[in-house]
Amino acid sequence: MVLGMSILNGESLTSSGASFSAKNPATGEKLEPIFHSASVNDANRAASLAEDAFAVYRRLPGSARAKFLRHIASGIEGIATPLVDRAHLESALPEKRLQGELARTANQLRMFAQLVEEGSWAMARIDPAEPERTPLPRADIRSVLRPLGPVAVFGASNFPLAFSVAGGDTASALAAGNPVIVKAHPAHPGTSELVGQVINRSVKECGLPAGTFALLFDAGTEVGVALVTHPKVKAVGFTGSLAGGKALMQHAASRLEPIPCFMEMSSTNPFFVLPEALKARASSIAGGLFTSFTLGLGQMCTKPGLIFLPVNGDADLFVKELAGHVNAAGIAPMLTEGIHNHYISGVKERQRHAGVEMLAQAGSATEADALPALLQTSGSDVLQDAELRKELFGPCTLIARYKDRDELFALANALEGQLTATVHGTDEDFAEFGDLLQVLEGKAGRLIVNGYPTGVEVCHAMIHGGPYPSTSDSRFTSVGSQAIFRFARPVCFQDFPQALLPDELKDENPLGVWRMINGALTRDAVVPKA
Amino acid sequence: MVLGMSILNGESLTSSGASFSAKNPATGEKLEPIFHSASVNDANRAASLAEDAFAVYRRLPGSARAKFLRHIASGIEGIATPLVDRAHLESALPEKRLQGELARTANQLRMFAQLVEEGSWAMARIDPAEPERTPLPRADIRSVLRPLGPVAVFGASNFPLAFSVAGGDTASALAAGNPVIVKAHPAHPGTSELVGQVINRSVKECGLPAGTFALLFDAGTEVGVALVTHPKVKAVGFTGSLAGGKALMQHAASRLEPIPCFMEMSSTNPFFVLPEALKARASSIAGGLFTSFTLGLGQMCTKPGLIFLPVNGDADLFVKELAGHVNAAGIAPMLTEGIHNHYISGVKERQRHAGVEMLAQAGSATEADALPALLQTSGSDVLQDAELRKELFGPCTLIARYKDRDELFALANALEGQLTATVHGTDEDFAEFGDLLQVLEGKAGRLIVNGYPTGVEVCHAMIHGGPYPSTSDSRFTSVGSQAIFRFARPVCFQDFPQALLPDELKDENPLGVWRMINGALTRDAVVPKA
Repeated sequence: MVLGMSILNGESLTSSGASFSAKNPATGEKLEPIFHSASVNDANRAASLAEDAFAVYRRLPGSARAKFLRHIASGIEGIATPLVDRAHLESALPEKRLQGELARTANQLRMFAQLVEEGSWAMARIDPAEPERTPLPRADIRSVLRPLGPVAVFGASNFPLAFSVAGGDTASALAAGNPVIVKAHPAHPGTSELVGQVINRSVKECGLPAGTFALLFDAGTEVGVALVTHPKVKAVGFTGSLAGGKALMQHAASRLEPIPCFMEMSSTNPFFVLPEALKARASSIAGGLFTSFTLGLGQMCTKPGLIFLPVNGDADLFVKELAGHVNAAGIAPMLTEGIHNHYISGVKERQRHAGVEMLAQAGSATEADALPALLQTSGSDVLQDAELRKELFGPCTLIARYKDRDELFALANALEGQLTATVHGTDEDFAEFGDLLQVLEGKAGRLIVNGYPTGVEVCHAMIHGGPYPSTSDSRFTSVGSQAIFRFARPVCFQDFPQALLPDELKDENPLGVWRMINGALTRDAVVPKA
Repeated sequence: MVLGMSILNGESLTSSGASFSAKNPATGEKLEPIFHSASVNDANRAASLAEDAFAVYRRLPGSARAKFLRHIASGIEGIATPLVDRAHLESALPEKRLQGELARTANQLRMFAQLVEEGSWAMARIDPAEPERTPLPRADIRSVLRPLGPVAVFGASNFPLAFSVAGGDTASALAAGNPVIVKAHPAHPGTSELVGQVINRSVKECGLPAGTFALLFDAGTEVGVALVTHPKVKAVGFTGSLAGGKALMQHAASRLEPIPCFMEMSSTNPFFVLPEALKARASSIAGGLFTSFTLGLGQMCTKPGLIFLPVNGDADLFVKELAGHVNAAGIAPMLTEGIHNHYISGVKERQRHAGVEMLAQAGSATEADALPALLQTSGSDVLQDAELRKELFGPCTLIARYKDRDELFALANALEGQLTATVHGTDEDFAEFGDLLQVLEGKAGRLIVNGYPTGVEVCHAMIHGGPYPSTSDSRFTSVGSQAIFRFARPVCFQDFPQALLPDELKDENPLGVWRMINGALTRDAVVPKA
C-alpha cells in the first residue's frame, strides 16, 4: 500500500520535508497520497546504516545474495497487478509495456542472482608461490573482485521499474555485495514506494541488516547531493539528464575522496541508411525506424534522434514514407509535464533554425499529448550547429541529408559519444563505406547493423554505455551482467593462510568457479607444491 | 645517444622552451646535455598525430602489437649498459637495482605481448541471435574490449625504467591498442630519451604510424596540463605525488569531455604486528621490516610508513631491535634535491609533534644523503592528527603504539585508502584479530599476511591500486596484466555480418580465445543455427 513515506532502517519514515504528489500525466490530476521529502539528516542516517550493513552484507556468500535478489524478484511479481496499475497512473505508459518492464526487472534480478551464485564473475586469479625462484622467490598472489561499499542509486523517469528502485543499478550493486540507497524519482513515487517495500520485506525475510537498503524521496535535489557527497557513500549509479548527471559528477569529483560514478546521460543514437540499402529496403527500414523513434513516445535513451541520408531520389522516397507514418501516428501523453514542456520547446527551437524543415507531425488530442514529429535539414547545418546533434527526448527525429561521402564522414566524426550507432547497408554498401563502422566504433558503446537501437537486450554481451556524454565512463555498462563491474574492485591477497582467503581463492576451489591460475583459465584446484 | 631532445612525429625535436639539466644526486653536478622543454604546440601536435595513428594502430591484430612490444623489450636490453649507466648517474640508484629494474621493464613488455597475442584478455562475449524467441526475437549481441584512444603517460621519479617511458602504463596502453604520449619525468631525462629512442625505432621498424609514440620534455607543468586537457587525448596514466595527481584529476574532470584517469599517488602502507607474532618472530620481522622500509631509500610507493604495535614488553624489544638496524644503516643520496628536501623537512615536521620521539637515525656522510630514521608515537596521537597518517617519501617509518584492541580497530578504521596493508600474526592472533583483515580489505588494494609490501610482483593476480588517495580509482591496477583494463572499453556489436566483426567475435573463433557464449566460458566456435 502506498503510504507516501521514505523507507529507512527497515521502516517507513515520517518526514517533514517539502511535500509533493504524483500526477497522472494523462489527466493532470494529482494522485493520492501526499509524499514528503526526506531530509539531509535522513540521507546521512541512511549512509551510516548502509556502512554498518556493509560490514555484514559484503561477507555473505554469493548464494545468500542470490537468494535475496530472487526474493525481491518474486516479491515484485507478487504485486504485479497493483504495481502496474500504479505505474500506469503515474507514467501514462501502457499497461502492456509496464507488464513487460516488470518481467524484465524480475528477470534482471534473477540474472544477477545466477551470476553471483555461480561466482565466476568475480574474476578470481591465482599466481601460486614460487619459493624456489631465483634471484627472488615469488610470494603467493591472489586477487578477486570485492564490493565497493554503499552505493547511491538515482531512479530514472522513463523506466519506472527497470531503471528505478529495483532496476539494473540496484540489482547489480546488491549482487556485488554493496548496500543500496535509492533516491526515488519524484515522477513515480508510488511505484517507487511499492517496490521499496518489496525490497525492504526481502531484507527482513532474508535476515539482512536493515541498512542494506533505503529509499528516500525528495521533491528537490538536496537529498541526492547529500548522498553523492557523503563520505560513507562509495559509488553512484544514475540514469537521467545530462545536466543532472554532470552536476552530480562534479559533486563526486569534488569530494575529499572522489568516488566512482556511472552516469547514463545523453545520446542522439545516430542512424545511417546507406545508398544501396535505401534502394533495396526503404519501406521496411522506414517502418522499423518509425517504430523505434516513437517507441515509448521517444522517451528512450536509445531513441534514434539523428538520421543520415544521402541527397538522392531513393532517400526522398524513404523520407516520404517515413513522413506518412508520422502523420498517421497515434498520440499519447508524455511521462511528466516537465518532459512534455521540454519536448515542445525543443521542437520549436529546432524549427526556428533556418535550415530545419518540419516534414510531418501527428495531430494533437489533449495538451498532455506528445506530437510525433519528423524534421529535416542539411548535413552542413548539422555540421555547423552542435545543438542539432544533441539529444531531444521525445517522439521526434531529425533527418540530415549529406551531399557526398566526405560530408558523411565529417558528420560521423563530428558526433559526440553515443550509447548506440546504427548503420543500414548492403554488402555493397559496406564494401564502400566500411570505414564508417570504424569511425563509429570510436563514438558509441553499441554498434548495430541493419537493426534498431531501442529494445535493449539484458544479456551477458550487452553494452549500454559509451563515451561521454552518453555516460560518464565508457569502460562500463548499466545493462547486462557486465553492469556488476561498476560496483566492484579487485583486492589482492598475498601469502594468506587458506582459512583467511575468500572462498573463490581457496586452493580446492570450493565454489567450482572459473579462475585464472598462472594466467590460464581453469576450474581446477590449485595443487600445493609438495 | 642522449641528445637532449623530445621525440615527435618519429623524429628528435628541436625545442626552444625553458632549458634544464639532469643532476647527479650523488655529486650535485649537472649532467650533459642540456634539455629543452617542449611547448604546448608540441603537445597539441603530439595529440593530433596520436589520433591519426590510432585509426591505424587500433586495427592491428594482437600479434602485431605483441611484435612491437617485444621489439621494444629487445631494444631496451640491447642498450642495457649505457642505459643503466645513465640511469645511475641521474638517479643515484645502485646499478644492480637498475639492472633488475631493466629486466622487469623488458619482462613486463613481454608479459603484455603474450597477453594480447593470446587474446583472451579482451573478454569476448557472444549471445547468439534467437530468432524464434517469443514474445520478441533476440538479436545477435557480441562485445569485446577495444582501445580508448591516445593515452598520456606521466613518468615517475622513483622507477626511471619500470614506471617511466616504457613502464607499465606505456606497455599496457600500447598493448590495448592505444597510441602513447609520454611526458618524461625531468629527474631522469637522459634515461627517458634513450628509452624513447628505442620505442621510436621500434615504431619505425614495425612499420607503425609515427604518431603511435611521442616523448615530451618539460621542466614545468604546461605540457602535462596541455596533454590532459587536449580533446584528442582519451585517458591518463600517472604515478607521482598526491598534489600532482589531484591537480591532473581536476583537469581531467573539468574537460568538456571528462576522461578516465588512473593516478597512483600516495600510500602509507600500514603494517601491523600482532601480539603473538611479536612473541614468536620479533627479530625476523624487525629485520624484514627494516629492509622493506629502507629499500630504495624508502622511495617506494609501497614503503611501510606506519607500524602498529601494542604497548607491551615484546613490542619494546622489537622496537629496540629495529632501532639497532636503523642506527647501523647504510646511507645514500635520494633521487632528487626536491625529494631530499621534502624528506628532511617532513621528518623535522614530525619531530616537532609533541608526542613523536626519534628512536634512531643513521649518521650522515654528505648533504645529499638520506638519513634512515625511526620515529615513534602513541596510537592516540595518530588518531588525533591526520598528518601523522600521511605518506612521507623516504627511509623513515613511524611506529604507533596502541593501548588496546579498541584503539587498534579505531586506528585501522581511521586509515585512508592504501595500496597495501600488512598484518603479521600467528593462527592465535588471527583467531583473535580476524576482523582486522576485514577492516583492512575496505582500505587497501593488496593485503599481505606475514610478508612485506615492497617488491611488487608483476603477474596476473597482482593489484597495485586501492581506494583514494592511494589511487584515483580503486577498480584498477597499474601493475600486472590487469593494468590493461584501464585503457580499454567494451564495444558491443549487434547483428553484425561475420566479415565485419573483430576476429575475437567471429563464429569460428579464429584466434582460439576464451569467450563467454550465453554466459558460459568456452573456446568453442559458435555453431550457427541451421
